[in-house]
Amino acid sequence: MTIYDISEKAGVSIATVSRVLNGSSNVSEKTRKKVLEVMEEYDYTPNAFARGLGLNTMNTIGILCADSSDLYLAKAVYLIEQSLRANNYDSLLCCTGYDLENKKKYVELLLSKKVDSIILVGSDFVGEKNGDNEYIRNAASQIPIMLLNGALDSPNVYSIVSDDRRSMYEAASSLILAGVRDILYFYNSDSYSGRHKLAGYRAAMAEAGISPPPSMLQFYGGPHEDIDAMTKTLLNLSKRGIKFNGVIAADDNLAIAAVKYAKKKKLKIPEDFAVIGYNNSILTACCEPELTSIDNKLDTLCRQLITSLMEVLAGNSIPKKALFSGELVKRGTTPF
Amino acid sequence: MTIYDISEKAGVSIATVSRVLNGSSNVSEKTRKKVLEVMEEYDYTPNAFARGLGLNTMNTIGILCADSSDLYLAKAVYLIEQSLRANNYDSLLCCTGYDLENKKKYVELLLSKKVDSIILVGSDFVGEKNGDNEYIRNAASQIPIMLLNGALDSPNVYSIVSDDRRSMYEAASSLILAGVRDILYFYNSDSYSGRHKLAGYRAAMAEAGISPPPSMLQFYGGPHEDIDAMTKTLLNLSKRGIKFNGVIAADDNLAIAAVKYAKKKKLKIPEDFAVIGYNNSILTACCEPELTSIDNKLDTLCRQLITSLMEVLAGNSIPKKALFSGELVKRGTTPF
Repeated sequence: MTIYDISEKAGVSIATVSRVLNGSSNVSEKTRKKVLEVMEEYDYTPNAFARGLGLNTMNTIGILCADSSDLYLAKAVYLIEQSLRANNYDSLLCCTGYDLENKKKYVELLLSKKVDSIILVGSDFVGEKNGDNEYIRNAASQIPIMLLNGALDSPNVYSIVSDDRRSMYEAASSLILAGVRDILYFYNSDSYSGRHKLAGYRAAMAEAGISPPPSMLQFYGGPHEDIDAMTKTLLNLSKRGIKFNGVIAADDNLAIAAVKYAKKKKLKIPEDFAVIGYNNSILTACCEPELTSIDNKLDTLCRQLITSLMEVLAGNSIPKKALFSGELVKRGTTPF
Repeated sequence: MTIYDISEKAGVSIATVSRVLNGSSNVSEKTRKKVLEVMEEYDYTPNAFARGLGLNTMNTIGILCADSSDLYLAKAVYLIEQSLRANNYDSLLCCTGYDLENKKKYVELLLSKKVDSIILVGSDFVGEKNGDNEYIRNAASQIPIMLLNGALDSPNVYSIVSDDRRSMYEAASSLILAGVRDILYFYNSDSYSGRHKLAGYRAAMAEAGISPPPSMLQFYGGPHEDIDAMTKTLLNLSKRGIKFNGVIAADDNLAIAAVKYAKKKKLKIPEDFAVIGYNNSILTACCEPELTSIDNKLDTLCRQLITSLMEVLAGNSIPKKALFSGELVKRGTTPF
């Protein structure tokens, strides 16, 4: 018996059940009675630990991220913690790694801690197969689940998403317009966001009548800090005779490797070789010339996520999904 | 009345009091009786919240860091969270910023949450003035305090430190030995670690009979991601006629700025201009040539910190301070 079941049986929204549980005055006496009756009927004890203590809430939010040492995720965790703190919530942080079983385990763990909500940071949590997302749906039957740059259409799940498909489409289109047509797509993740980025690249290429062979879609599966290994991946492609005069990378790390590749091959950037990265991180300032990159507005996303969460916890109804556009930040590695 | 007072009145160590509180079997019946008597006499209720619940421990550790989006601190938080999790502890993360008042506020907050220990991540928490560290001493009278790359000699405070002075001394000495004598020291923090790094640089210079004028010690106080601003700082120095053919930086970000400075001034690296960074971060691989940097063995420090903490929580006695040496990782920006 979950909050979702209660809302169904009582014929009210989850938000209303939540309002009743939190003693909000914003519920009619009739509705409150109905909800409490259903709870009694099904012997439902909400958040046994917290409420057994006579506390309305633990004021603690679980933050799950795959790896908080990743530049992008670290920044997201930081921004989220700051916003939660400003709203008087504690942050319980868990780093799950990229394995599905561990993600499930940590969600269970946070549920057992009776956190008020779980924020899944980064797009690594939503799988392509529906069955891989059952653990998110299950968790959402107990508490609201917030997805940062992931999306899942399910009750009590709220998605704050950057329009990665659109951003990548614009990046590729700009490059094609500038005359770069042999664009290698260099990526390291099949996550929700990863799939949308790839789709954006494909769409731009298709629109220009270019059909990149599979070898132009290069997956890198090594450690996310090993820029040398990434560079070698590109050098090996070149050795195999695969020709490309531009790289669009799904991450700034990969783009830095493309810049290093060009240096090793003595290709002039941006005249002979163009590079676009993703995330607009500090790495963009580290290479020569500086890296053109897509800013997916992480600050805005994180701020909106916490605003939305506070609304949900207050029992208010909010849109299930918010989509924000990114911005191509032009620097020295592109001819435009 | 704190755990520290109890240990004093009972004439036993804090560790023993902790053992009694945690119901460890590793205490003689006589000692246990003595400790419990003192507690009763002074009406001491340990961790009221946790123990009122009949729980021996919250199994939650507070992690404080100034800014978890900083590359180095992000990695530390990640490693610590992973180790704590492996020991079945939760991580309550708070980012304090660099202001003393906020640090105090967050320590108070974590104490009120009845965490089992607080880990202060990074050297920003220990001030030069003794009065600035009173909040750490006070917290340590209630629970063990672990310092990562900070040191404070105080009861119930444990310090895990990298030998930054030695590492910086070796870096500067190597550069002098290679014939680079006009070495600018570029730094951005007066923290515990920052002061030791500077002392190492000074010692090496003094040993070589070089007395750098104050203008060769350059403090940068801007945002830690703004590499352009750092580069401008160096260009302005040069405009003012200050001559230097090497930069030792207290952080890889600053070192990247030095590489960019050399590029703008058309100085050949490492022939005309040498650069050494600190932290051996991902940035070392991003510039051309790659950056020589000091690896201060963060993995080892974090692992040791959690090992020590587990010992302390189990009531065992451990050294108050552990000092680990770093390593100069030589790459293309130095002539050796």
